[in-house]
Amino acid sequence: MDMAMKYFLPHISKLEAYTPGEQINAPGVIKLNTNENPYPPSPQVVKALARLGPDRLRKYPQPYADDFRVAAAEVFGLDADMILPGNGGDELLRMIAMSFIAPGQAAAAPYPTYTLYEVLVQVQNAAMTWVDWPEDYSLPLDELAAVKAPLTFLANPNAPTGTVVECDMVAKLARRLEPFGVLVVDEAYFDFAGGATCLPLVREHPNVIILRTLSKGYCMAGLRFGYAVACRELIAGLRKVKDSYNCDAISIALATAAIKDQKYRQWAVDQVVAERDRMSAELTGRGWNVLPSRSNFILVRPPDGEAKRRYEALKRRNILVRYFGSRRLSDKLRITIGTPAENSALLAAIDRM
Amino acid sequence: MDMAMKYFLPHISKLEAYTPGEQINAPGVIKLNTNENPYPPSPQVVKALARLGPDRLRKYPQPYADDFRVAAAEVFGLDADMILPGNGGDELLRMIAMSFIAPGQAAAAPYPTYTLYEVLVQVQNAAMTWVDWPEDYSLPLDELAAVKAPLTFLANPNAPTGTVVECDMVAKLARRLEPFGVLVVDEAYFDFAGGATCLPLVREHPNVIILRTLSKGYCMAGLRFGYAVACRELIAGLRKVKDSYNCDAISIALATAAIKDQKYRQWAVDQVVAERDRMSAELTGRGWNVLPSRSNFILVRPPDGEAKRRYEALKRRNILVRYFGSRRLSDKLRITIGTPAENSALLAAIDRM
Repeated sequence: MDMAMKYFLPHISKLEAYTPGEQINAPGVIKLNTNENPYPPSPQVVKALARLGPDRLRKYPQPYADDFRVAAAEVFGLDADMILPGNGGDELLRMIAMSFIAPGQAAAAPYPTYTLYEVLVQVQNAAMTWVDWPEDYSLPLDELAAVKAPLTFLANPNAPTGTVVECDMVAKLARRLEPFGVLVVDEAYFDFAGGATCLPLVREHPNVIILRTLSKGYCMAGLRFGYAVACRELIAGLRKVKDSYNCDAISIALATAAIKDQKYRQWAVDQVVAERDRMSAELTGRGWNVLPSRSNFILVRPPDGEAKRRYEALKRRNILVRYFGSRRLSDKLRITIGTPAENSALLAAIDRM
Repeated sequence: MDMAMKYFLPHISKLEAYTPGEQINAPGVIKLNTNENPYPPSPQVVKALARLGPDRLRKYPQPYADDFRVAAAEVFGLDADMILPGNGGDELLRMIAMSFIAPGQAAAAPYPTYTLYEVLVQVQNAAMTWVDWPEDYSLPLDELAAVKAPLTFLANPNAPTGTVVECDMVAKLARRLEPFGVLVVDEAYFDFAGGATCLPLVREHPNVIILRTLSKGYCMAGLRFGYAVACRELIAGLRKVKDSYNCDAISIALATAAIKDQKYRQWAVDQVVAERDRMSAELTGRGWNVLPSRSNFILVRPPDGEAKRRYEALKRRNILVRYFGSRRLSDKLRITIGTPAENSALLAAIDRM
């Protein structure tokens, strides 16, 4: 039934789908390719999971995940109406693309960054205008503002570089974009950034949306739970394009337990940050170039720049890291920080290569 | 920050959001307003929930919910590549609207039906062309085909009427639409229809998509899990607009357990169908007009047609039913079939009104 493709809108037919990282769960594989946290979720989450009754499954969940919004509002000192929970940060990004980008328009983002942004823009039959990050990964403020995009994406910390733009610079960008466009600051990796955040901007800038996720800092990539923070009006508008019950009853309960346990989050984050710094030093000592990271991964260049060969050799040894192969990344690997044992196994494998 | 609304695309600004039914979970409330199953999920689901380890939460889930697809393919005798799991049937409906309807086009559906269809079409900056169901709720075949829509929705059983169009009639519609458009047959209430299904059509019609959900027959509205069945090419195209990890790890595990336990599903469905037939007879005996239903709800008209007054009086007695108030529905109530005790409480309340 090849003829079925004719029914799709032309821009969907020719779209190249986003490729998620390899999700291999074979025993013995050391998985350092998709930026999961190597530690289990909070014991409070495990308790909440054990307490879940079947009646929670039977009934429709809260349409706006109220339990989570109330808990998060208290933790972050926000109004609950400034918070929009979603089925992972990816769902919120897609809702944002649907709300602000019309067919034929251009969104803006610095390059390289999270590759999903472009796919989401293309699904809207729009295009991405890329602005290259300078070599020092400082914000290309003028260039981004010059695009005059109705929607600008800024991953902060950026992926796959792990670099951070400080809040005062992001505020300047928000002000420049304010007459015509929205700025999404994707803080998926915020937890590892040593406190750097643009969250305060939502009080002063009607065009700023902050995205957070429970996938990384809260060790729950499997749960699919993220949230957007913005002024009430933006959140109210985004709700209109939300699937009616976008967060399920179990994920609302577990996300609520997780967000309340900030002490555990800090513990898990501290372990990862300590290992990130160790791995950065170890690889630097081996002559690898390591971009200083404030995330839970590092972007590294082997001494000979032969990143693809390293990726393949590590895979043969059951160690998965991420190789992108695209412009500015073809000589680099992105390595997720694992447990001390996993990281040491990676170093040992590199030493044997 | 009222100025924030200016950032939204004009059709989103003026969009009226879908209103989910009231989700009140106060103790003592009898909830017969959003078509949940009154029985808990299968004991196999409860076991699967108890077995879930925290590692399942830590890692990203399967991007295509493979465990579920393999299990469902075996149950229904399909190829796993003809199945697309989603975060509830609503997500799949939204993906379908994104894939097949361009701004300015018109989708088609018979009226009255599930009100979400129109909202999803409007989010695409498109419009809905309604074709009235005739009074006997037989398929308005010629009128629907005459719209020449790139996308036609058919809820079957239909909501909020509970009526069914037989498969041979739907096949005729599919053939008429084939030159230009896709037909979505939303079988959310299939489980209660006594075996009536259009599933076999996906083998012969490249333009037919069947939607199913685990919310009703499998007693898991809180889980948000549905699936689309269509020819491989349509499923492959729809995957392009899917959020990267749209189903979470817990829901994949529980949905897989549920779909394997067809015996429990049949038991839960049998209870509901027996009560539906009892309630239909009881209300008919009281002079109410009851549309013959093949779903887990009944659309009823009180003898005096004063449906809104009944809805309000029942609500004061802590019994929630659904009142729509729209054309052809303003004199009717939609009543979800509950447990025998809940249904009897409703009858007693009606007798006291």
